[in-house]
Amino acid sequence: MKKLVIIGGVAGGASAAARARRLNEEAQIVLFERGEYISFANCGLPYHVSGEIADRDALVLQTPQSFKARFNVDVRLHNEVLAIDRQQRCVRVKNRVTGETYEESFDALILSPGAAPVRPPIPGLESPGVFSLRNLPDMDRIIAALDQNKPTHATVVGGGFIGLEMMEALRERGIAVSLLELSDQVMAPVDLEMANMVHETIVGHGVDLRLNCGLQSVENTEQGLQLSLSNGDTLTTGMLISAIGVKPEIQLAVDAGLAIGELGGIQVDPQMRTSDPAIFAVGDAVEEVDLITGEPMLIPLAGPANRQGRIAANNVFGANDSYNRTQGTAICRVFDLAVASTGLNEKRLQRAKIPFEKVYVHAASHASYFPGAHPVSLKLLFAPDSGKLLGAQAVGRDGVDKRIDVLAVAIRAGLTVFDMQDMELTYAPPFGSAKDVLNQAGFLASNLLKGDVRLCHSEQVANPTADQLLLDVRNPGELSKTGTLEGAINIPVDQLRDRLDELPRDKEILVFCQVGLRGHVAYRMLVNHGFSAQNLTGGYKTYLAATARF
Amino acid sequence: MKKLVIIGGVAGGASAAARARRLNEEAQIVLFERGEYISFANCGLPYHVSGEIADRDALVLQTPQSFKARFNVDVRLHNEVLAIDRQQRCVRVKNRVTGETYEESFDALILSPGAAPVRPPIPGLESPGVFSLRNLPDMDRIIAALDQNKPTHATVVGGGFIGLEMMEALRERGIAVSLLELSDQVMAPVDLEMANMVHETIVGHGVDLRLNCGLQSVENTEQGLQLSLSNGDTLTTGMLISAIGVKPEIQLAVDAGLAIGELGGIQVDPQMRTSDPAIFAVGDAVEEVDLITGEPMLIPLAGPANRQGRIAANNVFGANDSYNRTQGTAICRVFDLAVASTGLNEKRLQRAKIPFEKVYVHAASHASYFPGAHPVSLKLLFAPDSGKLLGAQAVGRDGVDKRIDVLAVAIRAGLTVFDMQDMELTYAPPFGSAKDVLNQAGFLASNLLKGDVRLCHSEQVANPTADQLLLDVRNPGELSKTGTLEGAINIPVDQLRDRLDELPRDKEILVFCQVGLRGHVAYRMLVNHGFSAQNLTGGYKTYLAATARF
Repeated sequence: MKKLVIIGGVAGGASAAARARRLNEEAQIVLFERGEYISFANCGLPYHVSGEIADRDALVLQTPQSFKARFNVDVRLHNEVLAIDRQQRCVRVKNRVTGETYEESFDALILSPGAAPVRPPIPGLESPGVFSLRNLPDMDRIIAALDQNKPTHATVVGGGFIGLEMMEALRERGIAVSLLELSDQVMAPVDLEMANMVHETIVGHGVDLRLNCGLQSVENTEQGLQLSLSNGDTLTTGMLISAIGVKPEIQLAVDAGLAIGELGGIQVDPQMRTSDPAIFAVGDAVEEVDLITGEPMLIPLAGPANRQGRIAANNVFGANDSYNRTQGTAICRVFDLAVASTGLNEKRLQRAKIPFEKVYVHAASHASYFPGAHPVSLKLLFAPDSGKLLGAQAVGRDGVDKRIDVLAVAIRAGLTVFDMQDMELTYAPPFGSAKDVLNQAGFLASNLLKGDVRLCHSEQVANPTADQLLLDVRNPGELSKTGTLEGAINIPVDQLRDRLDELPRDKEILVFCQVGLRGHVAYRMLVNHGFSAQNLTGGYKTYLAATARF
Repeated sequence: MKKLVIIGGVAGGASAAARARRLNEEAQIVLFERGEYISFANCGLPYHVSGEIADRDALVLQTPQSFKARFNVDVRLHNEVLAIDRQQRCVRVKNRVTGETYEESFDALILSPGAAPVRPPIPGLESPGVFSLRNLPDMDRIIAALDQNKPTHATVVGGGFIGLEMMEALRERGIAVSLLELSDQVMAPVDLEMANMVHETIVGHGVDLRLNCGLQSVENTEQGLQLSLSNGDTLTTGMLISAIGVKPEIQLAVDAGLAIGELGGIQVDPQMRTSDPAIFAVGDAVEEVDLITGEPMLIPLAGPANRQGRIAANNVFGANDSYNRTQGTAICRVFDLAVASTGLNEKRLQRAKIPFEKVYVHAASHASYFPGAHPVSLKLLFAPDSGKLLGAQAVGRDGVDKRIDVLAVAIRAGLTVFDMQDMELTYAPPFGSAKDVLNQAGFLASNLLKGDVRLCHSEQVANPTADQLLLDVRNPGELSKTGTLEGAINIPVDQLRDRLDELPRDKEILVFCQVGLRGHVAYRMLVNHGFSAQNLTGGYKTYLAATARF
């Protein structure tokens, strides 16, 4: 290997270049970046818009100079690769400053072109005042527009990571925000009932959240941008952030005849090699393989991109290193909440026709008697036969990242809900609980699979049959605060043992409390006294989240 | 099973009672507690002394009334079990309020007596003004003494969890504190170099830390308590907290002829059954089995106690449930630091003659450009052949619990350092990094095992041979701030490629930087240019921690 050419200088490309040089001092390494920056912190861009990251320079992680000095990489900014000539093993490059075009040969090529914001064919989306956010110049334009035009209202289209982060950033700047999302929820990796907890926070922070609502046209008027929405409404706004999603940048690969996958990403093998063995591809532009289903996936996230860059470089220099599939672990901060997930969600399990069970636990992030504890709401998905973990989602103000990280590793290790009972996690009052959220979820799921409990879900308590009775075992004070299910009778769990004769023996009792714990105690009491029963997993809190409409 | 008797009503005993009732409504369950409280938050006691937990009531998690109402458990406070009659299947009990003694039969018995503070035969340790901390009345006495006597100086003996937490609590109350520790470090679960980072914080918070220093005698004088120390010093103090350690409460078990293990704890099988099949024992009083070595261990921690109580109850009611060994996961907050560990430390690996390798990583708790990032200092121990994880320790202000939790589960799952490369953890700038500390540690350890890097340690750079040369690749500005190793030459990594001719080819180059990352780049450059080299893992930061003396 004499000459390695890399196209794209952000996460995957920069990682590949640095790793390549650590492996080999002799090779010539040329990195083409059509933009103005390499290795910038693209995940940090919204936080500089908000001002939370005060210093713009903090977002520039490497410069061509620093990369040259440390890694002897020939970084060429503003140089766009126009075409790949596979026969001649060279690329045609345009210097966007001078306009000059030239060729550069390669022995190996790593593609790291990333993904571009989706720009749907919405009339008027090219108007001034409409922005997307992919790189530093995009961010600079947004900040300049905010500083100059001082809009009092902005609209964000799309409730994915960037949309949510920009929504928050604009609110932090004191601007009224409308968030439009075509589907019924933000944050697609989690299921609706978990997203609804996020919706509540979004609305609570004064955002005009419009779900099931698409943007149909944009008109630039003197009053601002006039938006026509799919529900017939119109909206006048001072700035529009288009954050509908991203799609792999594959034009170069397509033109070069490289294989493209069914999802529209560059096809690679586990060594990150494209259909041409001298050409590798990494990052947001490639299709990955789902850890559990084995299906192709697009995961435009920084962690995988960085690791893939490293792996591609290893293989360029003769190793046989594999990227071991992806599980889509992700997290987003939304105001005071974190929402995170790993593995498969319920929607995907249903689509893939994979049998699953689910439990919900709401438990304190650390000892509840210690200041700063907040509930972690955890949804756990697992195989009904083996108990093997399939996916997890969590929402809360504290400790969400920790629980999903542990479960991400547990899923990758093939652990089961039974193993979660034995998890021996750090515990001192500021950090955890003697029975952590994860232990509790393991206990509950194990109980379910061993037949020690029958669980029901919101759909069932919302529509009980004539043979079922709803039993709320919370205290009357709680009911008067939150309400209860229609038709439910109320016997507090601590009185239940003495009031069992109030319950009919010819009906199945659907018992519930606030989060499911007291419901479980009541459930066990009932079945041990010969009643037929089910407990609502996650309790009334999950029911409210599952049935809320925003 | 008609009648279950439980001795001890805190973590293990209370868990066992609650679980037992959920399993069976018919059984009579009697819980004897010789103290005034059941199920109190003993881990929270120091934080009420400091005032951080403001409300004392928050520490009382259950009362006999609440336990009766919910679980129909007959809780008898102030009732001390004096003896177990295994033949008659009954216990002799003394009501400490009335003085009456009586017998209570059982079909099954669960012992959860806990562990008592070690009270060494130090003259004067019974003086007024000397306290230990095990339960709420102990805490009340300490707070009363603080409020009444207003000592300006207090002394804590013992640098374990309780000693450290009481040291912090007393400092938080504005009291000068001396901390005496017989060994050369606090927090025995971690190794010295990790403990030294904690020592630095302890001293930085104005504590008079005295390591390798024992207490020899206490004399109660008008000026206060006069302490004689093992190094010949004397100390006058207003209050003494004895936190030397705890030992299993086994007298009842011994008197009943139950088998006691070699470490002085009650011997149990994996079902938590003692040598008498009708008697179970759980919690701080029992010997557990180490996950990795299979050796007996004493782990007086709340998490295992709670899970064991649950398991014992399951088995009492006919299940065949096992406690799957213990790995000693633990964490302690020490002022603004957290220090945590899981699995085996280096000291124990050496004693057990288990071959191991180690790496150190110091990396930001989340994206370094995002506010609030602090270094996590991680020590990873693993098998040299397979890379199997053996133990981990971490110190830092943020994200320590998360990393050790992930590694605790990874160790339990039998994962290797190679698996750590693939860990797919939550990443957004407020929560993590695209290459997390754990990925970085995995990369480094994998590099080591694959022969991509040779690592050296503090011992070696402190004493280089005549055939070795020390090379500091940091910037001169860093050296002038922190100093460097004696005899080291300085070539910044970014100049190294152009200054290789300044280095001798007949010497082995021991290269180092601040944390090990730039050292690795330099190492790879050197070996790729034909030099012989090693990189100091953890860099100068680990060297300073390893060689500091407090």
